[in-house]
Amino acid sequence: MSIRVYYEDTDAGGIVFYANYLKFFERARTEWLRELGFEQDKLMEQSLGFVVKRVEMHNHAPARFNELLRIRTELVHCKGASLLFKQIIIGSQDNTVADAEIRVASVNVNTLKPTRVPADILGEMKRVD
Amino acid sequence: MSIRVYYEDTDAGGIVFYANYLKFFERARTEWLRELGFEQDKLMEQSLGFVVKRVEMHNHAPARFNELLRIRTELVHCKGASLLFKQIIIGSQDNTVADAEIRVASVNVNTLKPTRVPADILGEMKRVD
Amino acid sequence: MSIRVYYEDTDAGGIVFYANYLKFFERARTEWLRELGFEQDKLMEQSLGFVVKRVEMHNHAPARFNELLRIRTELVHCKGASLLFKQIIIGSQDNTVADAEIRVASVNVNTLKPTRVPADILGEMKRVD
Amino acid sequence: MSIRVYYEDTDAGGIVFYANYLKFFERARTEWLRELGFEQDKLMEQSLGFVVKRVEMHNHAPARFNELLRIRTELVHCKGASLLFKQIIIGSQDNTVADAEIRVASVNVNTLKPTRVPADILGEMKRVD
Repeated sequence: MSIRVYYEDTDAGGIVFYANYLKFFERARTEWLRELGFEQDKLMEQSLGFVVKRVEMHNHAPARFNELLRIRTELVHCKGASLLFKQIIIGSQDNTVADAEIRVASVNVNTLKPTRVPADILGEMKRVD
Repeated sequence: MSIRVYYEDTDAGGIVFYANYLKFFERARTEWLRELGFEQDKLMEQSLGFVVKRVEMHNHAPARFNELLRIRTELVHCKGASLLFKQIIIGSQDNTVADAEIRVASVNVNTLKPTRVPADILGEMKRVD
Repeated sequence: MSIRVYYEDTDAGGIVFYANYLKFFERARTEWLRELGFEQDKLMEQSLGFVVKRVEMHNHAPARFNELLRIRTELVHCKGASLLFKQIIIGSQDNTVADAEIRVASVNVNTLKPTRVPADILGEMKRVD
Repeated sequence: MSIRVYYEDTDAGGIVFYANYLKFFERARTEWLRELGFEQDKLMEQSLGFVVKRVEMHNHAPARFNELLRIRTELVHCKGASLLFKQIIIGSQDNTVADAEIRVASVNVNTLKPTRVPADILGEMKRVD
């Protein structure tokens, strides 16, 4: 997945504001899920949502205005209501901009309580692994 | 109302990104409504929300990182489901950073259809005028 | 130009937060300029930047989470240091989500003073008209 | 430091979007530094900036629209060009919303290379410890 760095993503330091990498990671997880065949607006109608429980992010090098970034998303582990992703942002010089381990819980969107990842989604996730 | 310009608000040009003034205006309308005695989370529970229908914003001078801005909010007109605000952002040199006329509709948050501003809110709005 | 609505773009009302349309318009102007052959990071190195001076935006219909939007960008007028754009956001039902007239000034990024649009850029802009 | 949750901070799930906690943490570090007597715009004029190198954030409970949050910021460790912060976001029910360990590097803003925290800042940091 490619992401262009626009003005909105940068700050007065001239580089991407660190919180915005979490936006990029979220976009990439959404596209990853879409490629598996699941649209999150449809899942929400079935009361299924995802919330991030833990982030460990390392920022290796700044990304700059107008740079074209690539993001790799890998599901490391999935059990019950818990998903563990590894994600990497790669800069236009093939350098690692940031990498992260992100733990996500699948929840009922109304109660925000954990709920098992449905079997069809789990099946697709395991298939691509 | 005072708003501090943080890194998140600026862009690589070193000044506040223009979309963020609309965030500041929205914060100020929320605080204006709170001063009238109305909390928007409570209003949402009663299915009342507000959506912006029209913005006319003039940007006079850039606001900079770490600047302390002030925002003035004035209700110009209120009729049925339609509210017209005038808002001004004033910079730390007492200069006009931006001003805007913003037309807001009160809506049912479930249907997003226009719904009259409730009489108690309307009464408070007219009282402060 | 297509833009996907991600979680980051929406608010608790379940629809796109109004300030974010200005982000989408800015992304589209950047891509429009790129198609003419101009990269804004290169222009910044030559001290050329663009700041928005006036926005008139009408919001016709809400855009929703996960919706795929299209944006049309048209340069209406260009004279000296002033550019006037018309931009429209079209929803997945071919409905108009928002349209805007946006006046942009070309500036020296160091002084933020207006500076004429360079002849080569102006030439390309007129060519595509 | 208190932070109000505005519409802009929430997403279609009705809660604060996870990247925005990093914005809140950054605001709090800026205010913490201001209380020590240092304004970041002045530091930037002296070419001193701060970039985040590592984030470990745990999200314990969602924060909601209109909630008033408090943030506690503690400097755990400072050596050379490296600062380690512990930060906690506390919800309106005195619950822990999120906590984070954030490692920041002090850098030259032009080269983005690490540079020692200046002695006067270091002195103030150690004084408040």
